[in-house]
Amino acid sequence: MRTYHGIALAACMALALLAVNSHPVSAQPAPDIKSVMLSVDVIWVLLAAVLVFFMQAGFAMVETGFTRAKNAANIMMKNITDFAVGSLAYWAVGFAIMFGTGTLYFGASNFFLMDANPATSEGMWTYAFWMFQVVFAATSATIVSGAMAERTKFSTYVLYSLVMSAFIYPIVGHWAWGGGWLSVMDTPFIDFAGSTVVHSVGGWAALAGAIVLGPRIGKFTNGRIKAIKGHSLTLATLGLFILWFGWFGFNAGSTLSGNTLSIAVIAVNTNLAAAAGAVMAMMVSWKKFGKPDIGMTINGALGGLVAITAGCANVSPASSVAIGIIGGILVVFAVEFIEKRLKVDDPVGAVSVHGVCGAWGTLAVGLFAQEAFGGVNGMLFGGGAAQLAAQATGVVSVFAWAFASAFVMFRVLDRIVGIRVSREEELKGLDIVEHQSEAYADFPISASTN
Amino acid sequence: MRTYHGIALAACMALALLAVNSHPVSAQPAPDIKSVMLSVDVIWVLLAAVLVFFMQAGFAMVETGFTRAKNAANIMMKNITDFAVGSLAYWAVGFAIMFGTGTLYFGASNFFLMDANPATSEGMWTYAFWMFQVVFAATSATIVSGAMAERTKFSTYVLYSLVMSAFIYPIVGHWAWGGGWLSVMDTPFIDFAGSTVVHSVGGWAALAGAIVLGPRIGKFTNGRIKAIKGHSLTLATLGLFILWFGWFGFNAGSTLSGNTLSIAVIAVNTNLAAAAGAVMAMMVSWKKFGKPDIGMTINGALGGLVAITAGCANVSPASSVAIGIIGGILVVFAVEFIEKRLKVDDPVGAVSVHGVCGAWGTLAVGLFAQEAFGGVNGMLFGGGAAQLAAQATGVVSVFAWAFASAFVMFRVLDRIVGIRVSREEELKGLDIVEHQSEAYADFPISASTN
Amino acid sequence: MRTYHGIALAACMALALLAVNSHPVSAQPAPDIKSVMLSVDVIWVLLAAVLVFFMQAGFAMVETGFTRAKNAANIMMKNITDFAVGSLAYWAVGFAIMFGTGTLYFGASNFFLMDANPATSEGMWTYAFWMFQVVFAATSATIVSGAMAERTKFSTYVLYSLVMSAFIYPIVGHWAWGGGWLSVMDTPFIDFAGSTVVHSVGGWAALAGAIVLGPRIGKFTNGRIKAIKGHSLTLATLGLFILWFGWFGFNAGSTLSGNTLSIAVIAVNTNLAAAAGAVMAMMVSWKKFGKPDIGMTINGALGGLVAITAGCANVSPASSVAIGIIGGILVVFAVEFIEKRLKVDDPVGAVSVHGVCGAWGTLAVGLFAQEAFGGVNGMLFGGGAAQLAAQATGVVSVFAWAFASAFVMFRVLDRIVGIRVSREEELKGLDIVEHQSEAYADFPISASTN
Repeated sequence: MRTYHGIALAACMALALLAVNSHPVSAQPAPDIKSVMLSVDVIWVLLAAVLVFFMQAGFAMVETGFTRAKNAANIMMKNITDFAVGSLAYWAVGFAIMFGTGTLYFGASNFFLMDANPATSEGMWTYAFWMFQVVFAATSATIVSGAMAERTKFSTYVLYSLVMSAFIYPIVGHWAWGGGWLSVMDTPFIDFAGSTVVHSVGGWAALAGAIVLGPRIGKFTNGRIKAIKGHSLTLATLGLFILWFGWFGFNAGSTLSGNTLSIAVIAVNTNLAAAAGAVMAMMVSWKKFGKPDIGMTINGALGGLVAITAGCANVSPASSVAIGIIGGILVVFAVEFIEKRLKVDDPVGAVSVHGVCGAWGTLAVGLFAQEAFGGVNGMLFGGGAAQLAAQATGVVSVFAWAFASAFVMFRVLDRIVGIRVSREEELKGLDIVEHQSEAYADFPISASTN
Repeated sequence: MRTYHGIALAACMALALLAVNSHPVSAQPAPDIKSVMLSVDVIWVLLAAVLVFFMQAGFAMVETGFTRAKNAANIMMKNITDFAVGSLAYWAVGFAIMFGTGTLYFGASNFFLMDANPATSEGMWTYAFWMFQVVFAATSATIVSGAMAERTKFSTYVLYSLVMSAFIYPIVGHWAWGGGWLSVMDTPFIDFAGSTVVHSVGGWAALAGAIVLGPRIGKFTNGRIKAIKGHSLTLATLGLFILWFGWFGFNAGSTLSGNTLSIAVIAVNTNLAAAAGAVMAMMVSWKKFGKPDIGMTINGALGGLVAITAGCANVSPASSVAIGIIGGILVVFAVEFIEKRLKVDDPVGAVSVHGVCGAWGTLAVGLFAQEAFGGVNGMLFGGGAAQLAAQATGVVSVFAWAFASAFVMFRVLDRIVGIRVSREEELKGLDIVEHQSEAYADFPISASTN
Repeated sequence: MRTYHGIALAACMALALLAVNSHPVSAQPAPDIKSVMLSVDVIWVLLAAVLVFFMQAGFAMVETGFTRAKNAANIMMKNITDFAVGSLAYWAVGFAIMFGTGTLYFGASNFFLMDANPATSEGMWTYAFWMFQVVFAATSATIVSGAMAERTKFSTYVLYSLVMSAFIYPIVGHWAWGGGWLSVMDTPFIDFAGSTVVHSVGGWAALAGAIVLGPRIGKFTNGRIKAIKGHSLTLATLGLFILWFGWFGFNAGSTLSGNTLSIAVIAVNTNLAAAAGAVMAMMVSWKKFGKPDIGMTINGALGGLVAITAGCANVSPASSVAIGIIGGILVVFAVEFIEKRLKVDDPVGAVSVHGVCGAWGTLAVGLFAQEAFGGVNGMLFGGGAAQLAAQATGVVSVFAWAFASAFVMFRVLDRIVGIRVSREEELKGLDIVEHQSEAYADFPISASTN
């Protein structure tokens, strides 16, 4: 037996002997059209998964860019670890709960992918499907690290990411995508790529975490709110571009098929909503603060992306612009509301971007859906209120589950292992105290930020 | 109705029931070979578009890396905004002008993508095609921000990006790719992926902008030229790698079909020209300045990429190396010429890389084209001078249009809203004065650069 | 003749006239199923190659992040240059030696790709195949730059990268993938995507280079070992994510066919081994050093990726986790062993990650291979010791060749041009002395790191 490389090469070099129908590929399935279509689907799903994987880098860059240099290595560690721990947890448990056969509330089969038979096309499809799903689970988990940045104990964060990837996220996933109760209502809940299932779950868990943790030292003092500046707006912007890039895989990959031409309009919708969100957040911040704010613009683009995620396969490009516009406006006001009214310290705006815009985008399906795009009409296009009601059901029930379960989990973790570093540790910075490290060893850090 | 996710899961879990011909994908088109080929084309074009989208991050990193820390957030904002504004403008107007039915000089139909019918394959193809075109438009627009860096008013830049994406770029695009006069000459102009249509348009508009703006304070003093150093050569290098990565989509995606095997040689040509450009610029800078210069090496690679863009489907790998070598040499001398002779301050070398190498690469098609690759022979391979003349016609006419229209636009914008920040603002840095922000709030900035 | 863009547009605009079977793509091959399968293969291989190309950015970021600011531009230059020089060398010579017809020890045909005929499918396949192989060659070459960082003369490094890409790497490649002796043993050596062929070759050459060079000034003083800190753990982490992202192309692309469904399990295995490696290295470092170490965690993820590369198509997901776990543990101990016992200064841990984990992963195929996945059983799954012996043969012989040839090369280069900068130059930093540049001109660098 020779490796595929060897075979390819031998064939490759024997050019004169080759005809098209014997091109250098071994283990070719029989050339029937359904096999090719399956290959096209597997390729599409895997490449989309790879794009979504890369969003981990985007989240890491946005989160570290928006926070302080003394905690940058800690945030990197959290982002690496939650993907690593999350991948193993989702392999062992999460996927089984989300997509296993079971009840209307959770599944319970195919733990450790043990039911996938590599000798069959179905087995291989299951692997491809798992690959796409694990990066979704990781997206939901990593959203939380931003809202809890700069004060959370690392060991506790590792435990959180385990619970999130194994239980909290997969249960919602089962409800909406795993044959659970949201998917079998008379008017089923529509969340095509996960405004609610992925982003709001992350956003609401982030809210719970930020509340249990309390604000960073110095954030709220004597009724005044201090803007704690991020340490690298270039990395934050890089992160936005990486996320936008990966989001094409997130949304268009959610067809789970490369043979579905709607991937084209999904990509267009994704792009237009992001653009509209960025422009609106920039304009609103300009009006409100006197200057176009870069943090708000980044979050506006992300808000537009989160908002279009639910309905990207159901609405027109023009509606996507509308959904993005409202997402971009919402972000600015939600950030202010959460900080000023709720007095919750969310260093990167994760609750506003993922929670609030996720809810908005999910509801928007009930308004903007058009039969020509996804088979369903929303209220603005002649449909009744039933879809909007279904969407609201999903939004509210997922909020209840995600917020409550995360809140309980963080409280329990706080009791058992403690959730927050000490005052001295926080002042010193988590890089040193948690990792004996400095993110930027060669550069002096401004005293004012310590 | 259940979401595709739900259907996939149900199917996925019912492994025993599945056969290959019922793999878990809903809304499958009828399995005929032409449908599969269309799917392959749509996938290819979308993935290529996603790669080209990511070039926005590459441009942002190169531009910010080559300029000063005090203006880094402003450059990020310009890069985010020109893509966001540009996407909306190209959706509303630009695409219609570029590809709409109309005259030999501009098109005028399908504004807001309103003619695309999502119920048809043609409609979906139009969406995919738009997605590919919008990222090209954005590439052209973003080139300008580098040459105008560190002194341009943000509000004016937003207006510029609107005009560029809606009018200046689409008109050239119509001439060459939209059925316009360059494409119907007796010997039609060949610019496969846009050395002229995309890069030179950006480069010449950048030249116009840099001239209207004038040089940065301190650049030219008493006949001496000051080298104003960039603040992050690591980010600039990251930007180069991102651009090179995305360029595979830019060039190979321009087949607009995944069923065209020439995508293979296009990728090879793209890579070899970039490599040759980098090596040559490194060697020339070594010879000229005594040391291999990293800025020149980066621009040499980019020059090679820009130069091969026009002819990547028409020339051999060996010719690609030659085209890249000349591109790499040209960049070094063009940067010097523009700075020392024209006394134009182009902080990142955008005019040299995109304008000059774009023109070179376009002319090179008339020299190096080979019938075996793209059906046409250039002068070096037995063709006559007609193709070279056609190429020159395109180069000159596009220069005239792009430079003149951009020059007028910048002059008008200067009159109405002002194009340049004040002296005090420029010295202080655009991050603070334009965005109340600091890109690197935790780090002290060296006084010498203020 | 009009460009493809022009044709596409014309068709695109004439929506009413189009039917599916005339969608806007020119030069369509005849619609037979084998042609479509070939297109799918070419697309898959090219996109995988593009992902692997991007690993160059990942290596650059990890290497610069783990080393000092004063040498950051130099590392960038080495990474750009080794890819550029390597691409040209592999085009001219390396590919011919690796895949040319020849002896069991090296090939010798198709120099400069001169035998590829663009008019045939085979020719186009050869281009696609070359594109995939050149990025592998470049991966092997760039591994070395990390171990030799912060003290190697730039000119010498350029010569090294030429020899590596043209000779040292291709010869091993010929043995294993080019029809050479390792691929025709009674029990052929299995290294599916290159744990040994690519990574160990790079790792052992890195070891030779680090030995010939000697340690950085101050690394080993009076029996004490100084931890020289990296300057950007954010960029290092970004680099990890980029590498992980690209590795999906590295491993799954090595099927050389998109029509092979095993790409799905390969992607899953790749991800799980990386996750397991990261988690284990984090835990081991936590136990050993009292804190979870970010450098070790990054290298643990990379160790898992390197280790699974050989067997990714031959083992189960559960075995991938086991292989990754051992890889993650090995990295931590190997880094310590090489530093403390061998007294070799490898600034980024390249020898441990690529050499040691590459060897481990290659041997692991002889233990964990399962017939259901790749047709062969390892010792743990009922196979005999023959496969393990074949693997050991490959590991040992490749070590012997790569280490010895690189050692001789570096010695010769040291004699002729000198391999190391002077003491003064090293203290000053290579950016200034080698490139008249500063990576971070706007930021003061802490005195302690000079």
